[in-house]
Amino acid sequence: MIQQIKRHRSTRSYVENRPIPREVMQQLIEAATRASTTGGMQLYSIIVSSSDEMKERLSPLHFNQPMVRQCSAVVTFCADVARFSKWCEMRDAQPAYNNFAWYVNAAIDALLASENFSLEAQNQGLGICYLGTTIYTTAKLIEVLELPKGVVPVTTVVVGYPAKEHPLTPRLPLEAVWQEEKYTEHSEAEIDELYSELESSEATKALLENNELPNLARIFTERRYKREDNEAISASYFEALRTQGFI
Amino acid sequence: MIQQIKRHRSTRSYVENRPIPREVMQQLIEAATRASTTGGMQLYSIIVSSSDEMKERLSPLHFNQPMVRQCSAVVTFCADVARFSKWCEMRDAQPAYNNFAWYVNAAIDALLASENFSLEAQNQGLGICYLGTTIYTTAKLIEVLELPKGVVPVTTVVVGYPAKEHPLTPRLPLEAVWQEEKYTEHSEAEIDELYSELESSEATKALLENNELPNLARIFTERRYKREDNEAISASYFEALRTQGFI
Repeated sequence: MIQQIKRHRSTRSYVENRPIPREVMQQLIEAATRASTTGGMQLYSIIVSSSDEMKERLSPLHFNQPMVRQCSAVVTFCADVARFSKWCEMRDAQPAYNNFAWYVNAAIDALLASENFSLEAQNQGLGICYLGTTIYTTAKLIEVLELPKGVVPVTTVVVGYPAKEHPLTPRLPLEAVWQEEKYTEHSEAEIDELYSELESSEATKALLENNELPNLARIFTERRYKREDNEAISASYFEALRTQGFI
Repeated sequence: MIQQIKRHRSTRSYVENRPIPREVMQQLIEAATRASTTGGMQLYSIIVSSSDEMKERLSPLHFNQPMVRQCSAVVTFCADVARFSKWCEMRDAQPAYNNFAWYVNAAIDALLASENFSLEAQNQGLGICYLGTTIYTTAKLIEVLELPKGVVPVTTVVVGYPAKEHPLTPRLPLEAVWQEEKYTEHSEAEIDELYSELESSEATKALLENNELPNLARIFTERRYKREDNEAISASYFEALRTQGFI
């Protein structure tokens, strides 16, 4: 397997503010652009924020996770139909990418690019972490990053020099995600089996004690991702898509 | 740069029906699972369809592109909150992933996994091509792949043994997608510059002659991706998200 895929882990602590040389960053962006892209259109922008000022402004939008200030750069991957549409208009062509299908196409482009960027970062000795908070605070990100209509953030990757080695995170057995020919729902017995290693790990036991909850599933539903938050985030991200012209 | 990133190209013709050994497919799936995933939840399923019967049924849903029948496997990457939700319910936890935010989270998971899968495929001597048609015919894909609520296709990758070497596809200069600190719209002069190489290529000249159109932008807006199609696809994919319980 490709070494960088095998070794990937999320890096959550960084050597503070160590800058990434421009030629290294250029390699990461170039790797990103080699990913497949809808119709060859490259419907994304990669915003590399590395100044203290920008990290300071972005930090609260990512819930003040310390790595946002520590890392070398906060890299926001945006679905972007604005650049392509502007080119069309300049050529007397009528673009029609202000709709939901093209949010999806552009988000696909942005995400494939982000994975190449992340693997190449690790290839260059850097560490990365994806920030799911990007879709929590989208309206503010749009404001801080000054995104015009046709551009919306999809995910953020922090990148920098790892301050320590982080462990690989556990994964479910392959059968959990690998379906043959078509989809077959797992039986209850299979679900028990697929989650058993994760549920019986030392890390899980410690979590349950600290949270005074009887099982790992309830850590997810009652602590990490609660219905009221999920619904509020859905509404606000949806609204951001509307503001940016995708709905 | 990672060799497989540098060498990536879309492969559109395959040695017909040559099967991929199971241990190779296992490596590709394992590579997919090493990608970052929201909260460690692995909210995706990877459906590997390689039987003649399934390829026959999937082919019209991908507009009968010959590579769908030729390739070794049609691999549909789905956003999947069903498995995780079932586990929660079995543990007396109340899942709340039937909303738009979790479509986005699960689609991110599925897409990062797909890029790892694709890079590892190329590492194993295989070729791949992403199929954008996945969001055009989603309702029928749901039927053919027998997807339950909580599962929706996001993209498809065909994979197999390349019948010939395909060229690298051109990309815009890095400045087209690389934004520093925050977003700055390109001026018209910059847009002209960014697209000039693409617009003046031999491939573009041939396209314009064949299509009797004055410029490349109009090939995109009048031939490839037309407003009425874009709007119809938006409506039908949106409806599929609703049917599958994400909206």
